[in-house]
Amino acid sequence: MGLATRSETAWPDLQQVYEAIDARFDKHLAAIQDFLRMPSISNEGIGMEETAAYVRKLIADVGGTAEICPTQGYPVVYGEVNAGKEKTLLIYGMYDVQPVAGEQWISPPFGAEIVELDEFGKCVVCRGVFNSKGPLRGFFNVIALLREMGDLPVNLKFVIEGEEEMGSKHLPDFILSNKDRLRADAVFFPFYSQNRSGKPILYLGCKGLVYLELACQGSARGGPTSRDVHSSYAAWISSPAWRLANALAALVSPEEHILVDGLTANAKPPSDEDEELLNVLSKTFDANVWLKEADALRFKVDLNGKDLLRHYLFSPTITIDGLSAGYEGPGMKTVLPHKATAKLDIRLVPGMTVADALSRLKAHLSKHGFDDVGIEVLGSYGPSKVSVREPGVQALIAAYRHLGYDPEIWPMIGGSAPFYLFTEELGIPIIIGGLGHGGRAHSPNEYAPVSGMKLYEKSVATYLYVFGADTRIRQMC
Amino acid sequence: MGLATRSETAWPDLQQVYEAIDARFDKHLAAIQDFLRMPSISNEGIGMEETAAYVRKLIADVGGTAEICPTQGYPVVYGEVNAGKEKTLLIYGMYDVQPVAGEQWISPPFGAEIVELDEFGKCVVCRGVFNSKGPLRGFFNVIALLREMGDLPVNLKFVIEGEEEMGSKHLPDFILSNKDRLRADAVFFPFYSQNRSGKPILYLGCKGLVYLELACQGSARGGPTSRDVHSSYAAWISSPAWRLANALAALVSPEEHILVDGLTANAKPPSDEDEELLNVLSKTFDANVWLKEADALRFKVDLNGKDLLRHYLFSPTITIDGLSAGYEGPGMKTVLPHKATAKLDIRLVPGMTVADALSRLKAHLSKHGFDDVGIEVLGSYGPSKVSVREPGVQALIAAYRHLGYDPEIWPMIGGSAPFYLFTEELGIPIIIGGLGHGGRAHSPNEYAPVSGMKLYEKSVATYLYVFGADTRIRQMC
Repeated sequence: MGLATRSETAWPDLQQVYEAIDARFDKHLAAIQDFLRMPSISNEGIGMEETAAYVRKLIADVGGTAEICPTQGYPVVYGEVNAGKEKTLLIYGMYDVQPVAGEQWISPPFGAEIVELDEFGKCVVCRGVFNSKGPLRGFFNVIALLREMGDLPVNLKFVIEGEEEMGSKHLPDFILSNKDRLRADAVFFPFYSQNRSGKPILYLGCKGLVYLELACQGSARGGPTSRDVHSSYAAWISSPAWRLANALAALVSPEEHILVDGLTANAKPPSDEDEELLNVLSKTFDANVWLKEADALRFKVDLNGKDLLRHYLFSPTITIDGLSAGYEGPGMKTVLPHKATAKLDIRLVPGMTVADALSRLKAHLSKHGFDDVGIEVLGSYGPSKVSVREPGVQALIAAYRHLGYDPEIWPMIGGSAPFYLFTEELGIPIIIGGLGHGGRAHSPNEYAPVSGMKLYEKSVATYLYVFGADTRIRQMC
Repeated sequence: MGLATRSETAWPDLQQVYEAIDARFDKHLAAIQDFLRMPSISNEGIGMEETAAYVRKLIADVGGTAEICPTQGYPVVYGEVNAGKEKTLLIYGMYDVQPVAGEQWISPPFGAEIVELDEFGKCVVCRGVFNSKGPLRGFFNVIALLREMGDLPVNLKFVIEGEEEMGSKHLPDFILSNKDRLRADAVFFPFYSQNRSGKPILYLGCKGLVYLELACQGSARGGPTSRDVHSSYAAWISSPAWRLANALAALVSPEEHILVDGLTANAKPPSDEDEELLNVLSKTFDANVWLKEADALRFKVDLNGKDLLRHYLFSPTITIDGLSAGYEGPGMKTVLPHKATAKLDIRLVPGMTVADALSRLKAHLSKHGFDDVGIEVLGSYGPSKVSVREPGVQALIAAYRHLGYDPEIWPMIGGSAPFYLFTEELGIPIIIGGLGHGGRAHSPNEYAPVSGMKLYEKSVATYLYVFGADTRIRQMC
């Protein structure tokens, strides 16, 4: 049964909505460009207040109530649009973007210019067009249009934070202290989900993350305490850098096996559902595409197909994100550094928790005599997981199929996001989606093809229709 | 027998020389300040040509022949002053200084201003005043004065290089291709040798150095090959940073014991002469002064007195001078770095060689499976050692004593210098000295007390007299 033919609702016909999007897309695109042209760089404190106010107004303009909720950092914009419907969808998003300092762009990074890119045709090139002010603003285009044409199929709530690119430091406070008013049937994160081949990718979970800085420095134990000294003293003065190198080697072996006792003990193996999804995925999985994406010539594990995929998605990792000590310039400088630091991230798979990972790391360092290594937690997320059987997920699949797209369904992604706040803390499934494509997030020349931005709006409208419809309809999709 | 009473030579009486230095020191100081005010920063290519030309003229002005000898880097200024005497002293020095970029100074770093410093009274504050354009220029003051007053007690040769602060990269070429004309009875390195308590310190040897950069990077073996990638890929893409951490830990244990097979096998234990010198030294050795100098609260070895000193001076070391990989800024960035580097220095004690240390390091890494770790040698020196019984050393001790100073004699220092070129390649002992004091070499507010700069000139004149005198006189000192 085609969705566009449903007649039992007061909502405008979907086909009419698609036509309206086509007709008005120039204006929609201009609205997105306006929003993108407001820099909102949380890490540098640029444009945050104005952009939060702009988002508040977007919610108010579609008939919602909205407020700017202070946090210890940048505020969360919270809003509600009560359409008097059965279902409520909570929209999670962010109004901040990554910095652009030091980057070379083909057009101004906040110019939102239309640039012809070889592989993709006309694209908007701008910081945030893909991740994720483009899809957020497009979502409001759809809501405004639906309200103008008739009614919304679902009630909406909005949690739009300003610190995602800083690790969502204060989102947990907001979520945990607003549990009651955040009740919803599902959370939706607006996103351009088509890969560069046009395939929509549907992710059902993400790994957790503990981001740490390990620091060794001179102290009562020995070593220079406040400044780098001449390296000739190394014969009788301890070296924090050797200490750090050895502490690191106690965590991960030369073959990159995790050595931290019990770190992975609670990791859940993939469920039967995950295995089924992996079966399907592995049929189209092209390892070479992923190698290219990772700028690598081979994988570090001797696995193929489904086994390789399973390993990627369901393995916890410890990664050195950065190392720093002493003299790092060109040529020689003979110093004994007083301090050495390593930035590490631990990726957690379902079953693991931030607190457990941290306590096992500390216990392991301590057991191996590295009590003196400083550990600072710079940020953390729990892992997050949603079943493919969730109605909100099934609705997205149905919406994609209605538009002629068959999604690739991933039980997990390798990356991390604050989605556990919804799935674990609020107990609400989160669905990430929308058609459209984008790339170069966190990199120069972040882009999204214009045609995909239009298709995205149609997919969002479709999703809201399917999600808002009654159970029978969803089951028929 | 007092040196000043010798009458069998045609040289002016030493007492007259001291008086002449006193009388003319204002002019001598002004000449030193002039020289110091010429920046000559080899690492930044600043003022090198002018300063080399100036040094050439200094040699010519005292009646010598001098030439600017090109090398693959900055030239060596070579000169000879033939006084028709029995003994020839080869003066080794440098006309380059360390950079000052980014440093905060109390007076302009190349201003050579006279500044009253609490502990030391009137001082010249300038880059190079201590290390080592101050003593070099002062040496020429003495030579000019002696020539003016009569004659020189020794023939002189000069090797003044312009790359000491860059690791004397091209000095070996110069020395090895000029062995014949560099013949001399001893090499003298003009230096302010009094410590901050006024004690002259006489060093008889220095450790060798191999300065390396170890690099792990993505390659056909795995890992990102050309750029840092998202750290979520760590589950299936190798990490050069983990590789480096483990390679480093294979070199030095958590307790900082050297693990490299055979690295120290050829290290010679201290000789009987060294043990005697250590006996004397340990009587006045104040460990706390050294701890303060190293900005540390304790030593890394549980030794005291002579044992601690012996450990410092006669132990080879491997030091991490710098570590660098991935994201080193504030806060979080989740990247899997494509490259990780460590700067290392290996200090060699007598008996060890650069070639052997390097080959053992490579063999050790290879044996432990780290063939893929890149090793670049950025600079190296062999170790150097002179016996206290050398006539040139005994002459310096006698000169110090004549002026009322009893030197502290160190069989070795912890640091490194290109002195092996003279002791090992040319077979000529090197003597480092002169009274006077200086401090903060390689640091902001490098200084030398003015009174010490005058005393230095007297000590140089005295040394030349004693060294140039016949054997009987030297033995009587």
